[in-house]
Amino acid sequence: MARKPRIVIALGGNALGKTLPEQMIAAKTTSKAIADLVEEGYQVVISHGNGPQVGMINNAMAALSRENPNQPNTPLSVCVAMSQAYIGYDLQNALREELRNRKIMDPKVVTMVTQIEVDADDPAFDHPTKPIGHFMTEEQARHAEQAYGYVMMEDAGRGWRRAVASPMPKRIVEMNAIRALVEAEQIVIACGGGGIPVTMKGNHLTGASAVIDKDHCSALLAKELEAEFLIILTAVDQVAINYGRPDVRWLSRLTCQQAREYIAQGHFAPGSMLPKVEAAVSFAESGSGRTALITRLERAREGILGLTGTRICR
Amino acid sequence: MARKPRIVIALGGNALGKTLPEQMIAAKTTSKAIADLVEEGYQVVISHGNGPQVGMINNAMAALSRENPNQPNTPLSVCVAMSQAYIGYDLQNALREELRNRKIMDPKVVTMVTQIEVDADDPAFDHPTKPIGHFMTEEQARHAEQAYGYVMMEDAGRGWRRAVASPMPKRIVEMNAIRALVEAEQIVIACGGGGIPVTMKGNHLTGASAVIDKDHCSALLAKELEAEFLIILTAVDQVAINYGRPDVRWLSRLTCQQAREYIAQGHFAPGSMLPKVEAAVSFAESGSGRTALITRLERAREGILGLTGTRICR
Repeated sequence: MARKPRIVIALGGNALGKTLPEQMIAAKTTSKAIADLVEEGYQVVISHGNGPQVGMINNAMAALSRENPNQPNTPLSVCVAMSQAYIGYDLQNALREELRNRKIMDPKVVTMVTQIEVDADDPAFDHPTKPIGHFMTEEQARHAEQAYGYVMMEDAGRGWRRAVASPMPKRIVEMNAIRALVEAEQIVIACGGGGIPVTMKGNHLTGASAVIDKDHCSALLAKELEAEFLIILTAVDQVAINYGRPDVRWLSRLTCQQAREYIAQGHFAPGSMLPKVEAAVSFAESGSGRTALITRLERAREGILGLTGTRICR
Repeated sequence: MARKPRIVIALGGNALGKTLPEQMIAAKTTSKAIADLVEEGYQVVISHGNGPQVGMINNAMAALSRENPNQPNTPLSVCVAMSQAYIGYDLQNALREELRNRKIMDPKVVTMVTQIEVDADDPAFDHPTKPIGHFMTEEQARHAEQAYGYVMMEDAGRGWRRAVASPMPKRIVEMNAIRALVEAEQIVIACGGGGIPVTMKGNHLTGASAVIDKDHCSALLAKELEAEFLIILTAVDQVAINYGRPDVRWLSRLTCQQAREYIAQGHFAPGSMLPKVEAAVSFAESGSGRTALITRLERAREGILGLTGTRICR
């Protein structure tokens, strides 16, 4: 029997809510969109961001250390691992329920702890750029620098946040396991928060104080799975050039070549649309028959049917 | 090709340390014992307790809520999920490293978020008996009762702790995924902390404020996998009757029938050796060729070879 066409879908961490009650509501909405794709006959693999969640867990572990001096501070990599279970547990159950509501009575959805190997020499480690966690006053930020050795950054006029490195993903450590589950027709939630960043030293994997971009990580996952589609979800229906200007142009289709030209012309905002377009290009150009789609969660099904979104093909 | 004989090994949460640095040391020791079994040719599946760890995570999330009123308290079930990743991430990497040190160069070890369905009408919910988390003074305990609605218990003269229900495991929700991974020769870490306890209401799985006994959960896992061995680790080499008395008798072999008689005679302490022997009997009597072994971590290999430990067979 021919295998089902595969979709890797990359969800934003911000879209999953800042608190558990928010997350439970968001997971329901998300599950409807994903169940649509399952019903269309696709084998779906889910990755997701974890910006607010890993920040929250990091804050909780720091609060515990302040109250109990026997509890040393918890490394960010361990917090990323915990965020994968924190998010995956909710998401898998919301999806399971949605599938059962649609009379798919034995839904197979599973969450895997996933590590991503990064290069210890990645230049990103010298320039932490990724803001995580809650906003602080400048005074709180200075305290965090001194007390925990954090690098702090001012984030778009909204306050101070911790900044961590965002190195490029090199290898998905648990790839064999993800493949075995996908081949068993499980809906796998993997690479949460861009994966737990680790570096290899001899035979030892060490957690890195970093957050991997979840779109780049999802592109790597989609390549490894030889997926037909990578869907990168965002807050708009389509990618645009001249965004925010009167001559804005929304894009339905892009070749990798065109996308690279628009990137060079500075059309896409760093930390926002830029990594999404870069990740999309990286996947689309990696093989024939591979399509990246950037669109809004609620339009994912229409996007796959070719009715909306921005498609990037080789 | 005939499949490898399967071992489910149940590790104690207390043996994994109270803090992350302790856990990293404990995970190394544990990994040596597990790698011995892998080298003996067994397909190993690992489950583990999480008493100190889930208590610590629960405390951290409570500390965050005290500092930040926008963060509601985190349910115990979510804390169990997080503890699975917190422990599994360390344990899988320690085992991976130990296997690589032994020239098994592509070690496949993976951690799965695992839920266990329990019966919402389980009488255990009316009588919380399982102590979790740190010790408190009576005053702190009274505060926790009022502030969080916790049930508190005095624990063996050592102080007050939160008590939660310990219902019997009915069904491993992700069993298909565990089976697929085991068939792909992955070393799977599953059912951490006895699994995330959930109850089914219509199509909805709800987290339960409970901790499932990890030995009973491991017995269920071993049955489902049709394992040849269930190894339950403890702090002594063998099970004894008349324990702590001059006429103490250490046991090398037990039939299920004998074990049940000793249970009825009150030889085994509740919350300690009793659930281990009960779980061992439950597994051993579930099919022919199924052996439960109770011994100390460092003796696991000798136990499998028949040199020490207590074997329980049908």
